[in-house]
Amino acid sequence: MSCVIPVRYEGKPCYDIHLEQDFSKLSGLLRELGYQKERKVCILTDTNVAPLYLDEVKKILQEHFLLCTSHVIPAGEAYKNTDTVGSAYEHLIREGFDRKDLLVALGGGVVGDLTGFTAATYLRGIDFVQIPTTLLSQVDSSIGGKTGVDFMQYKNMVGAFYMPRLVYMNLSVLATLPRRQFLSGMGEILKHGQIKDASYFDWTAEAYEAILAKQPEALEKMIAESCIIKRDVVERDPKEEGERALLNFGHTVGHAIEKLSDFHLLHGECVALGMVAAAYLSCKYGSYGEEDFERLVKVLSLYQLPVRLQQPGFSPEEILAVTRLDKKMESGKIKFILLEKPGNAYITRKLKEDEILDGIRYLFP
Amino acid sequence: MSCVIPVRYEGKPCYDIHLEQDFSKLSGLLRELGYQKERKVCILTDTNVAPLYLDEVKKILQEHFLLCTSHVIPAGEAYKNTDTVGSAYEHLIREGFDRKDLLVALGGGVVGDLTGFTAATYLRGIDFVQIPTTLLSQVDSSIGGKTGVDFMQYKNMVGAFYMPRLVYMNLSVLATLPRRQFLSGMGEILKHGQIKDASYFDWTAEAYEAILAKQPEALEKMIAESCIIKRDVVERDPKEEGERALLNFGHTVGHAIEKLSDFHLLHGECVALGMVAAAYLSCKYGSYGEEDFERLVKVLSLYQLPVRLQQPGFSPEEILAVTRLDKKMESGKIKFILLEKPGNAYITRKLKEDEILDGIRYLFP
Repeated sequence: MSCVIPVRYEGKPCYDIHLEQDFSKLSGLLRELGYQKERKVCILTDTNVAPLYLDEVKKILQEHFLLCTSHVIPAGEAYKNTDTVGSAYEHLIREGFDRKDLLVALGGGVVGDLTGFTAATYLRGIDFVQIPTTLLSQVDSSIGGKTGVDFMQYKNMVGAFYMPRLVYMNLSVLATLPRRQFLSGMGEILKHGQIKDASYFDWTAEAYEAILAKQPEALEKMIAESCIIKRDVVERDPKEEGERALLNFGHTVGHAIEKLSDFHLLHGECVALGMVAAAYLSCKYGSYGEEDFERLVKVLSLYQLPVRLQQPGFSPEEILAVTRLDKKMESGKIKFILLEKPGNAYITRKLKEDEILDGIRYLFP
Repeated sequence: MSCVIPVRYEGKPCYDIHLEQDFSKLSGLLRELGYQKERKVCILTDTNVAPLYLDEVKKILQEHFLLCTSHVIPAGEAYKNTDTVGSAYEHLIREGFDRKDLLVALGGGVVGDLTGFTAATYLRGIDFVQIPTTLLSQVDSSIGGKTGVDFMQYKNMVGAFYMPRLVYMNLSVLATLPRRQFLSGMGEILKHGQIKDASYFDWTAEAYEAILAKQPEALEKMIAESCIIKRDVVERDPKEEGERALLNFGHTVGHAIEKLSDFHLLHGECVALGMVAAAYLSCKYGSYGEEDFERLVKVLSLYQLPVRLQQPGFSPEEILAVTRLDKKMESGKIKFILLEKPGNAYITRKLKEDEILDGIRYLFP
């Protein structure tokens, strides 16, 4: 069981996404990409993932490279900043890395985004490989070349579009992923169905027992499907000038909740809440059906994702204020993604602030 | 009198270099590039240039944009670092800059490199325009998309290849450029002749009175010629995978001297010294003629550039050690640029360290 999904960038073949059940094919693929034995490689990972998989990946890479070093950063969004990038630069300088050496991101979205940005900017750019180890990073952040770190509390304020040379997923690592993290990844997956493929959404609803049991076949089908949806979007709009913004469905309100919760709520949980608010608005101000809304809420609940906020310690008005601040960075008006129907999303700038507040209020029972 | 030099990137038209005698055409050109009136623009400049030209450029841009703000950084290489980039991010965040707004670099190489890197990484990349105000930045750093800052004493350790939307030169600003800075720029210009065009080198030697008198026609001819040489090289090899390295003639030893002098010697002065060492080695270990060497030394002296080090406070061995450290970052071996003859340079990795030391020793009378 394995699967290869090629990704194009600006019309040309760029990198492949490999879905595997172990790490065994990694060094062969790097050899095929042309990395010579005299090259150095640095694995960037965090304190969660290092005890689990660093030794195994290091052993494989040590056989293929002159030097395989590692840089372990503290786990968590709080460390996704320019200081941590600086610590990675220091490591690379100390180990004498040059332009032809390689970085490997072994971890979730934070590790991937941060490693990608380090690779994009060290010596004006060196190659990097993504080995995403969370469901969320496998279906979302490892694909499409968005790299970056937070700055002054602003998410992904500093970054670059920079493509990996390879995305290598060992799906068996999901066995050790904490359940709550796994469910958080489901938030993005359910989003993919809602914005691009209603039948995929239906399948994720029907197959929930197999998925929650982490059955390998079900996981591979699901992750491949989500990767293809994301791949297709980023191929058509790599720099988010249009369609790619649809992937932000649930994120406008979701990001604000994530920030206000001080990252106690996980990304996918906040996206779930954001989707509920956006779907509610899609009904009230658009053509999205009430039954579809009820169904979305039901499926999110099936995956134990939050659909309401219970005494969160912040108000609807505060969420709106943070949303405004966040979106100010993208355009003068708040850009909002709504659903026409399951599988079909669209961008609107017409929602007024009090209308958006309506959607946010729905989350407060 | 004016001149337009188009630059292509990866086979496609990318940006134009404009040589003008004032700032009057700037806003018309920005309009042509499609920047709407509701956009914001931030001029990044330094404490040397701000008192001279900031108000004038600001006035022109204020007429065309909703908001024209400025961020003035302390002048000097010592401030070309990630902290200064951070201060620029903060300014942009505070002023609510989004992805479609614009940065303008008004200044020399430090301002250009730093602004380019800020533009490359703020919100994963916003547009920027170069307005180089030193001879050095006009003929060298503003062209070719190399952006970056120093990190832990390492020059340009952190950066990105990121193209400007426009390079606008008002050559009349050279009138206020301190003489020593002007002569430093001549170091790069004489290098262009030596590596690519012997007849251009001859002309710069013959025309030295007109050039030193800053006669507008001579300056325009010279700057255009140098821009075209640099343009041609970076078009063929944008990411320095081959030919672009030839532009480093004089820089291997030059960078080391620059660092050891703690930037008391100017960049072009160090390049002049580096060229002398490299030309000496080109004679001793290659086919470069002794008369050509004498001539190069004579022309450098004509432009009052240093060709020997007088009690610099550091030794030839120290220069070699820093060279080694610097070049370690680019490849395991020291990559050295030598001259076959005036107008023809080549890359070698065959020089042994004691041979390089020979060349460095020549600088110590």
